[in-house]
Amino acid sequence: MKKHNYSAGPCILPQEVFEKAAQAVLNFNDSGLSILEISHRSKDFVAVMEEARALALELLGLTGKGYQALFLQGGASLEFLRVPYNLLKENGQAAYLDTGTWANAAIKEAKPFGETLVVASSKPENYNHIPKNYTVPATADYFHCTSNNTIFGTQIKEFPALDIPVVCDMSSDIFSRQLDFTKFDLIYAGAQKNMGPAGTTLIVVKESILGTTGRNIPNILNYQQHIEKESMYNTPPVFAVYTSLLTLQWLKNLGGIPAIEKINEAKATLLYTEIDRNPLFRGTAAKEDRSNMNATFLLNDEAHAPVFDGLWKAAGISGLPGHRSVGGYRASMYNALPLESVQVLVDVMKDLETKV
Amino acid sequence: MKKHNYSAGPCILPQEVFEKAAQAVLNFNDSGLSILEISHRSKDFVAVMEEARALALELLGLTGKGYQALFLQGGASLEFLRVPYNLLKENGQAAYLDTGTWANAAIKEAKPFGETLVVASSKPENYNHIPKNYTVPATADYFHCTSNNTIFGTQIKEFPALDIPVVCDMSSDIFSRQLDFTKFDLIYAGAQKNMGPAGTTLIVVKESILGTTGRNIPNILNYQQHIEKESMYNTPPVFAVYTSLLTLQWLKNLGGIPAIEKINEAKATLLYTEIDRNPLFRGTAAKEDRSNMNATFLLNDEAHAPVFDGLWKAAGISGLPGHRSVGGYRASMYNALPLESVQVLVDVMKDLETKV
Repeated sequence: MKKHNYSAGPCILPQEVFEKAAQAVLNFNDSGLSILEISHRSKDFVAVMEEARALALELLGLTGKGYQALFLQGGASLEFLRVPYNLLKENGQAAYLDTGTWANAAIKEAKPFGETLVVASSKPENYNHIPKNYTVPATADYFHCTSNNTIFGTQIKEFPALDIPVVCDMSSDIFSRQLDFTKFDLIYAGAQKNMGPAGTTLIVVKESILGTTGRNIPNILNYQQHIEKESMYNTPPVFAVYTSLLTLQWLKNLGGIPAIEKINEAKATLLYTEIDRNPLFRGTAAKEDRSNMNATFLLNDEAHAPVFDGLWKAAGISGLPGHRSVGGYRASMYNALPLESVQVLVDVMKDLETKV
Repeated sequence: MKKHNYSAGPCILPQEVFEKAAQAVLNFNDSGLSILEISHRSKDFVAVMEEARALALELLGLTGKGYQALFLQGGASLEFLRVPYNLLKENGQAAYLDTGTWANAAIKEAKPFGETLVVASSKPENYNHIPKNYTVPATADYFHCTSNNTIFGTQIKEFPALDIPVVCDMSSDIFSRQLDFTKFDLIYAGAQKNMGPAGTTLIVVKESILGTTGRNIPNILNYQQHIEKESMYNTPPVFAVYTSLLTLQWLKNLGGIPAIEKINEAKATLLYTEIDRNPLFRGTAAKEDRSNMNATFLLNDEAHAPVFDGLWKAAGISGLPGHRSVGGYRASMYNALPLESVQVLVDVMKDLETKV
């Protein structure tokens, strides 16, 4: 039976990526060797790393604009630490927007490095919206935000225009929508949503913001070290980088971010329209802040859960339960999820109306 | 043509591991989903992580002895930083043995955290041997050493018996030879030699040594955090952990470390015997410290290099050049390299005698 994978991450990737990645595990570039056994300094893999770094910048419209792309290990959780180490001055101040669990984790990791000012938080309302009309001090070393909140189903639609470096954790919506990416000075994203498998993190950084803290930065945490070594300061996660490259190539062939944005909007519209129409369900996020990546919703009557759960499982859907910290349902509609899969879920929701 | 992959890491893994890993990229556990798209919190992957952690301890003879195994991201280079963060007290002292490039990198990363005492170094002799008869202060917070030096072809054969925590970077020879692993309190190893693909690091730590520094440890660097979260504090590198599990299962089925040690000794004896016999070559490491993993050697007459290079390439050998920092040749004979591949190299070395 056809599967409809709504997993929140790691998540569905294009079928052609799975096929090419599996082939490379057996025989990479017709070398007779597996992608898992070649040296990261081999000509073939250096070419992979260079293409992945260049293509990430190209898709974001940042080629030739003073940015560098890195593919490192550690996940976004390590960037929570790398960011203050690289950008927060001794006795400095960092401004954070608190929009959910991951924003909070980033704040916690920065705290020992200086003053972390939370400019706004939607925590009192269980993060059901994105705060607006907050003020960011012009003296802060940087402003940090999380573009999309997987757990609460919210997404920042308008980013503040600031004269200080803007840092954004785009783990769960990078490459999914058009933005003026030059507004950001540092973007990071764990690969395991729209870019590839778990195991690598994309970091896109404007070089000019680095080297100003006066802080002693450990080598492995120092963005400048990684830039100098062309993302090979230490052994990179070869397979995760290669599979990310395959996914970026797929996106480019599809027409890049403008093309995928249209598909993502169609999917989100289809599902949110049904959530709003169907009297059995309600969405949890403020409508104007709804995420096009993760739609979070509840049954109005919990007693319908066994029937609903049976229906979507029978339809081949997986990964629909909400995050263990909030419950309910979460439909993650990342780039590689086809519109057809969303139609299957919508059909199940309509079907539930006839069953209860 | 059959390939003989002498790459120093990432390196050859068992053929059955490549086949099973490729299959899992297409269809994991017959779930209809790729290993790359399943949630790391799915029942199937939690089982992979638990088995990998348990099997690592079992193969090392450390089950039930107060140790925890973790599979994290970041490579050994991140452990260079995690170690002082977790073990070096404020105003404390750490003792390091300097046996090569990686030991040196570990020392550099620890320096800002306290006094790093280098108890001995073979740097003046270009790291051609392992220092002996050094003294480690009983007051040091820990002693750190590198069991095998890939670049210089040396390997520690006897480890000091100490009353302070012993930390060992075993990246390039873990699971290759029998040792009393209870002598160590913290072992770490990048996967990409004897354990799996690049992208995960095995950390084996005696829990009782943790939590004593009084230092504020960032969450992502805190071993205790990772232990509490059962190696899922953040999204693990799913594919790298799964492929490591496959490799550990292969090793267990082969008979574990005692069985692979015999094979590794046979391979090393075959090659070193030829290096010593053949008048065209000489080894670079002190005989008593020679690594069974990486044999480093030189041509006595550099003029023979073009002929030799042509011969081994024609024989299907790859990855034989020495590290870019030292030159010469390096034959890396990790667990998965078959004895037959070493015989091919030895035959080429003999063949060179008839050609020059």
